[in-house]
Amino acid sequence: MNPQDIKAILFDTFGTVTDWRSSILDDFRAFGERNALEADWEALLDEWKTGYRPGMDAVRSGEWPWTRVDQIYRTKLDEILPRYGLAGLAEGEKVYLNRAWHRIDPWPDAVDGLTRIKKKYVISPLSNGDVDCLVNMAKRAGLPWDVILCAEIFRHYKPDPEVYLGAVELLGLEPHEVMLVAAHNYDLRAARSHDMRTGFVARPTEYGAQQKTDLKAEEEWDVIATDFRELASALRC
Amino acid sequence: MNPQDIKAILFDTFGTVTDWRSSILDDFRAFGERNALEADWEALLDEWKTGYRPGMDAVRSGEWPWTRVDQIYRTKLDEILPRYGLAGLAEGEKVYLNRAWHRIDPWPDAVDGLTRIKKKYVISPLSNGDVDCLVNMAKRAGLPWDVILCAEIFRHYKPDPEVYLGAVELLGLEPHEVMLVAAHNYDLRAARSHDMRTGFVARPTEYGAQQKTDLKAEEEWDVIATDFRELASALRC
Repeated sequence: MNPQDIKAILFDTFGTVTDWRSSILDDFRAFGERNALEADWEALLDEWKTGYRPGMDAVRSGEWPWTRVDQIYRTKLDEILPRYGLAGLAEGEKVYLNRAWHRIDPWPDAVDGLTRIKKKYVISPLSNGDVDCLVNMAKRAGLPWDVILCAEIFRHYKPDPEVYLGAVELLGLEPHEVMLVAAHNYDLRAARSHDMRTGFVARPTEYGAQQKTDLKAEEEWDVIATDFRELASALRC
Repeated sequence: MNPQDIKAILFDTFGTVTDWRSSILDDFRAFGERNALEADWEALLDEWKTGYRPGMDAVRSGEWPWTRVDQIYRTKLDEILPRYGLAGLAEGEKVYLNRAWHRIDPWPDAVDGLTRIKKKYVISPLSNGDVDCLVNMAKRAGLPWDVILCAEIFRHYKPDPEVYLGAVELLGLEPHEVMLVAAHNYDLRAARSHDMRTGFVARPTEYGAQQKTDLKAEEEWDVIATDFRELASALRC
């Protein structure tokens, strides 16, 4: 792959650009301290996250109509809160917790790498997150996106082809001119199946110290880097 | 209207943020000089622009299927080039001319005003232009958008309600939390009809020195400013 053939670089966001688990744990623990609430926040977050993929897959299979991630998480949150002794939270507190996904910090290398990459390429998220979540997260964290592309715009969740091909079309490009960067091998497999270029950045603690999946590149992706600074250098930025 | 009630500000782009007529005239004249081609570029541009609204209206009425602005302009360009002695242009040259809409400069006050407004609000275009055009224009001109919202995302052209209400929905906001800024009274009328807030910035030379329309605010819009710096101040930015 010649980096000069690439015109735009899309980034999976949660886990790849931003460290959702540490950020939300800190956020929830601070919420607990402010409100004198004790709970096993780590177990709550890990169980909460398990509702994400099944919700999206229910949309992908047609079992559910189009449903925003915000609603998928809210449904799961309402289901599990009682088990963590938090059934009595006020509606405003539940909304606050559910919007923790808007308040996520980037990995330490992400803003620097993206800022370098942006000088040569169009950069965008390609996330399953909602538009407002990605906008608020970028504004808070200083992610310098040129445009925000995500599942909600196409009303399809990754790995549905409509997301990848829809993004390529809106950018006015051909698939081979667009690279997807992700910390998840499944996402890159889908992108490659549509003739897009692929970049893997390992995030071995995305799911905590005991993470078992996506510890390394499972195929020979076009670029394999340890972080976004190395990625920027590999792309000659 | 209290500026604190506003969360996001959307900007009509061609004419409001960027000076398409001067930019394209300069661009075409330079193209002519480089290629030793003589033509009445001003008449060509003014006639070309007349194809824009009828093309969008053909989509709005259902007469045409969804058609990108890029294609609307290309169809009109191919129609008129022979009348200006330019029938013999190569395909690459026609593509280059048609993409002049990606190479438009902002009005002198726009980047400064947007940069100030961005510190307090989510800012986005709300344009009938295509995504790739808006992305390339922003990157070239330094327009610091947080997100790119436009007709192509909704497959409807302004003033169809889907564009205004679709943007509000993707931002996760209520209409009264979103302001549209435009140099065109028709656009603000549509936004106000959906309970959005409105800001008028006059661009009395958008169509050249002889411009007859939109020389002033035709209703009591929530904010009326002479340029984006005054707009930023009115919004307490």
